[in-house]
Amino acid sequence: MTVTIRPATPQDAALILRFIRELAEFEREPDAVKATEEGLRHALFGERSAEAVIAEQEGKPMGFALFFHNFSTWTGRKGLYLEDLYVTPEARGSGVGTALLRHLAGIALDRGCGRFEWAVLDWNTPAIDFYTAMGAESLDEWRIRRVTGEALAKLADRG
Amino acid sequence: MTVTIRPATPQDAALILRFIRELAEFEREPDAVKATEEGLRHALFGERSAEAVIAEQEGKPMGFALFFHNFSTWTGRKGLYLEDLYVTPEARGSGVGTALLRHLAGIALDRGCGRFEWAVLDWNTPAIDFYTAMGAESLDEWRIRRVTGEALAKLADRG
Repeated sequence: MTVTIRPATPQDAALILRFIRELAEFEREPDAVKATEEGLRHALFGERSAEAVIAEQEGKPMGFALFFHNFSTWTGRKGLYLEDLYVTPEARGSGVGTALLRHLAGIALDRGCGRFEWAVLDWNTPAIDFYTAMGAESLDEWRIRRVTGEALAKLADRG
Repeated sequence: MTVTIRPATPQDAALILRFIRELAEFEREPDAVKATEEGLRHALFGERSAEAVIAEQEGKPMGFALFFHNFSTWTGRKGLYLEDLYVTPEARGSGVGTALLRHLAGIALDRGCGRFEWAVLDWNTPAIDFYTAMGAESLDEWRIRRVTGEALAKLADRG
């Protein structure tokens, strides 16, 4: 079945939130999603903190990708960072994920990005195998650190 | 010795490139830096793909931090991502790194960011211990994937 990719519009905010929640469930963090439909609409189409594309098969939304630009001091250029990639269970294996990745790689090239990057859970073997097949290399030495909530206020000396 | 943090200016491009190269050497990737002074000036002060701050002691630059905004679909808010943090060998242990982290945490709060994040090399024990003492949590399950160069062109079907 043909997959078409289109930019998300403000009318897609509820759909995107649904996909985000389904992805969080798959990632074993169903309660992690604090985002709201209105907040997403503002972030994506008002503030423009990130961008999203919707994948459709015969006019039906089957997945999405949300991305923003990062920056590499080594390349001296901006990169494209994929925050979320999601394909609905019914559409898995039908080329939606591949179409989304190829589309984003094209955007990265069009915008002069030196790199296209994302993170994967170390137990998500199907995704890891898929990404390897798509030509992605693994940056095994790097670990993410995060400060949030009270720890962030304390670090800023505003606790 | 008092540490002052100031925003970088276009006149700092050469200094920032020097710091980026010194950091890449420390990270065992001395040949990885392709960035140029002119490219950095454009990225930071023209295109504004990222921002940088300089740490000084008695007017002498002793380190820098380079950061940009990422976005979390779980919080629905932008975050602050620290791409590079560097302190010159002579200034290590004198509070420059702490001052930079605290300053960036303050920027994150001022801008309504839900998270302050960065990556660390898994063998860089002094940095890991420092970040833990600063209240950072470790996202051990996540691994970075990257597509670049010919693999990126191939993924975009432009090989």
